[in-house]
Amino acid sequence: MKVKASRKATFNAAHRLFRPDWDEEKNNAVFGKCNNPRFHGHNYDLIVSVTGEIDPETGFVIDLKVLKDLIKEQVLDPFDHKNLNLDVPEFQNLNPTAENIAVVIWNKLRPHIDAERELEVVLYETPRNFVTYTG
Amino acid sequence: MKVKASRKATFNAAHRLFRPDWDEEKNNAVFGKCNNPRFHGHNYDLIVSVTGEIDPETGFVIDLKVLKDLIKEQVLDPFDHKNLNLDVPEFQNLNPTAENIAVVIWNKLRPHIDAERELEVVLYETPRNFVTYTG
Amino acid sequence: MKVKASRKATFNAAHRLFRPDWDEEKNNAVFGKCNNPRFHGHNYDLIVSVTGEIDPETGFVIDLKVLKDLIKEQVLDPFDHKNLNLDVPEFQNLNPTAENIAVVIWNKLRPHIDAERELEVVLYETPRNFVTYTG
Amino acid sequence: MKVKASRKATFNAAHRLFRPDWDEEKNNAVFGKCNNPRFHGHNYDLIVSVTGEIDPETGFVIDLKVLKDLIKEQVLDPFDHKNLNLDVPEFQNLNPTAENIAVVIWNKLRPHIDAERELEVVLYETPRNFVTYTG
Amino acid sequence: MKVKASRKATFNAAHRLFRPDWDEEKNNAVFGKCNNPRFHGHNYDLIVSVTGEIDPETGFVIDLKVLKDLIKEQVLDPFDHKNLNLDVPEFQNLNPTAENIAVVIWNKLRPHIDAERELEVVLYETPRNFVTYTG
Amino acid sequence: MKVKASRKATFNAAHRLFRPDWDEEKNNAVFGKCNNPRFHGHNYDLIVSVTGEIDPETGFVIDLKVLKDLIKEQVLDPFDHKNLNLDVPEFQNLNPTAENIAVVIWNKLRPHIDAERELEVVLYETPRNFVTYTG
Repeated sequence: MKVKASRKATFNAAHRLFRPDWDEEKNNAVFGKCNNPRFHGHNYDLIVSVTGEIDPETGFVIDLKVLKDLIKEQVLDPFDHKNLNLDVPEFQNLNPTAENIAVVIWNKLRPHIDAERELEVVLYETPRNFVTYTG
Repeated sequence: MKVKASRKATFNAAHRLFRPDWDEEKNNAVFGKCNNPRFHGHNYDLIVSVTGEIDPETGFVIDLKVLKDLIKEQVLDPFDHKNLNLDVPEFQNLNPTAENIAVVIWNKLRPHIDAERELEVVLYETPRNFVTYTG
Repeated sequence: MKVKASRKATFNAAHRLFRPDWDEEKNNAVFGKCNNPRFHGHNYDLIVSVTGEIDPETGFVIDLKVLKDLIKEQVLDPFDHKNLNLDVPEFQNLNPTAENIAVVIWNKLRPHIDAERELEVVLYETPRNFVTYTG
Repeated sequence: MKVKASRKATFNAAHRLFRPDWDEEKNNAVFGKCNNPRFHGHNYDLIVSVTGEIDPETGFVIDLKVLKDLIKEQVLDPFDHKNLNLDVPEFQNLNPTAENIAVVIWNKLRPHIDAERELEVVLYETPRNFVTYTG
Repeated sequence: MKVKASRKATFNAAHRLFRPDWDEEKNNAVFGKCNNPRFHGHNYDLIVSVTGEIDPETGFVIDLKVLKDLIKEQVLDPFDHKNLNLDVPEFQNLNPTAENIAVVIWNKLRPHIDAERELEVVLYETPRNFVTYTG
Repeated sequence: MKVKASRKATFNAAHRLFRPDWDEEKNNAVFGKCNNPRFHGHNYDLIVSVTGEIDPETGFVIDLKVLKDLIKEQVLDPFDHKNLNLDVPEFQNLNPTAENIAVVIWNKLRPHIDAERELEVVLYETPRNFVTYTG
């Protein structure tokens, strides 16, 4: 009886999409107004899902309070009210697109989830733009 | 041409998370404030999805009015405005976690859906906590 | 320059609508399935709004972190994961309809908001049923 | 590192569910009030998802601005503020159920997405009724 | 202790914005694609609010089940799954803009609400376009 | 027959709350993590409402397409994908709190709305924090 248990969280951050090895013209052509050198920002919505057997003792796949605390420690504390490009080490040399942010979050959470459980990360940059990564 | 057709419904219920074979201390350690012996409650959002071939006659995978009536009969009538622990037989000896409620709902609906169709149940306990069960 | 500043919060609670001085028949006629003697429950959404002049120093009408903490102390701590009828003193002799809950919350918050500021409470019992009280 | 990138859009349209080869009685029995011969309508929400490798240069699976423009050209321009039965050639002989609309949209988009990328279409007819097609 | 009690409902309808006494050119200039002669449609969200004293007996301003039934009888039955221009007498000679629909709904409900109670109608044509009428 | 007609829009921006005439300690005490000197950001939701008589010719209080274009010209073009502190002249010497942003938007829109019409601006900084300004 495998069940997927999901927890939603939110963080607010500034970012800029660009490559330092490209000139301004190419950055603007590819990233448009997301390449504002003075940054813009988003309320990111994050849904983290863990899939596994229901523990017959507790009736939980994973205690969602534990998952909530893990998301706070691994994602919200380092990302919330931050500038992703300047404040978060993982994006020093990685463009903070929604895709890359989702992969970084997945990689940060993966070691803390039992290996036999599946992990999924959904990241909404806006209510109209979002990405899903399952490893 | 397999399509997944989904119908959303809502029910409001009281519940309590605990195991009668554990003492109060252990129940509190595991279930926290969800172990209030006088109960708390939720507006549960339920999404039931049926996956199968489109009927070339009607253009439906399943008539969503039929699915709506089935959800009413099998889930809303016995669960809505009820105390899950005290009013619903399935939870007499089963902890009404979101995971267990989703499995119970899936088991109640499964016999009423054609065997060759897949069935998925998503249950939101709150907008931030939800589970998915596909059998 | 009067601005209304609003903060949204959520609590999950069980309740029952009934009058102990009415018999079962009359309680059922008036309150229907909300009169389940074993309780049902809701995810209540609460929006608290304070209207006043913008403080020229901070640019705030009220620091929403302060309002968030006040809501937690006055409403979430006593109401969340509780049985409103049994756990909350204000409803020992008051039917916990959405209207009455909103008035109780307003009365609890009012002494903590500067007298010259207006206070509004919106309480959603479900996404389809909600009430507004302004004193 | 396969990621699913999703873009949400909306269109407003009139439609009617019926089969011209059935008589009024049978159309009413199967399609109910959706068979109003003078039409009714919906705000359709559409989520288009493309799954593939992240481009290491851009950090995108697909530029969501490009996907937005493709959805506008292939779906919104021909469908928005239209009568699906009368204005859209694909439904001249095809009942515009949510299932069939989703398949038509998928077929219109598929040639414009790289063949090695997976395509998914989710179509909400209402917030309570929706379908998913993945080819 | 005046409280505003609100109930949300939904109906799906087709409509067309135009004036028969204007030529096509003027109708297109003013109403744009809303003037499609073959109609388009919406999922209309409706919020009806009644403001008055709390009944000390019941704790209700108005029984929201009664308000729900009134909305069904006066609005959903005549409007849902209908063509507003062709099926609803009130719009035979009145352009079914959101503003006019809200006024029509308010006028239909007003005689059924106690005279000393205030009535408000909010009508969402889309999640981005909505109107409010209070008489 | 006065009706309030509302239009919702969205912009994404970076900002920082602080006063240059306060030292870091006082800025942190008052503005907390909103005082990150490298900025953070939000998806701001904006609802602009115009209240006035329905034009008997068109059935509109205001053509919402015209209001949409006005919001784009006056708010979205200068604010979207911008750093409010660094890119928007109005916040060179004004702390970009939600309250101040709402007042600035109201002041920018006011000259473009007929003087006898009322104007209201609601600004969501997050789904949980929002402000309302009516002049």
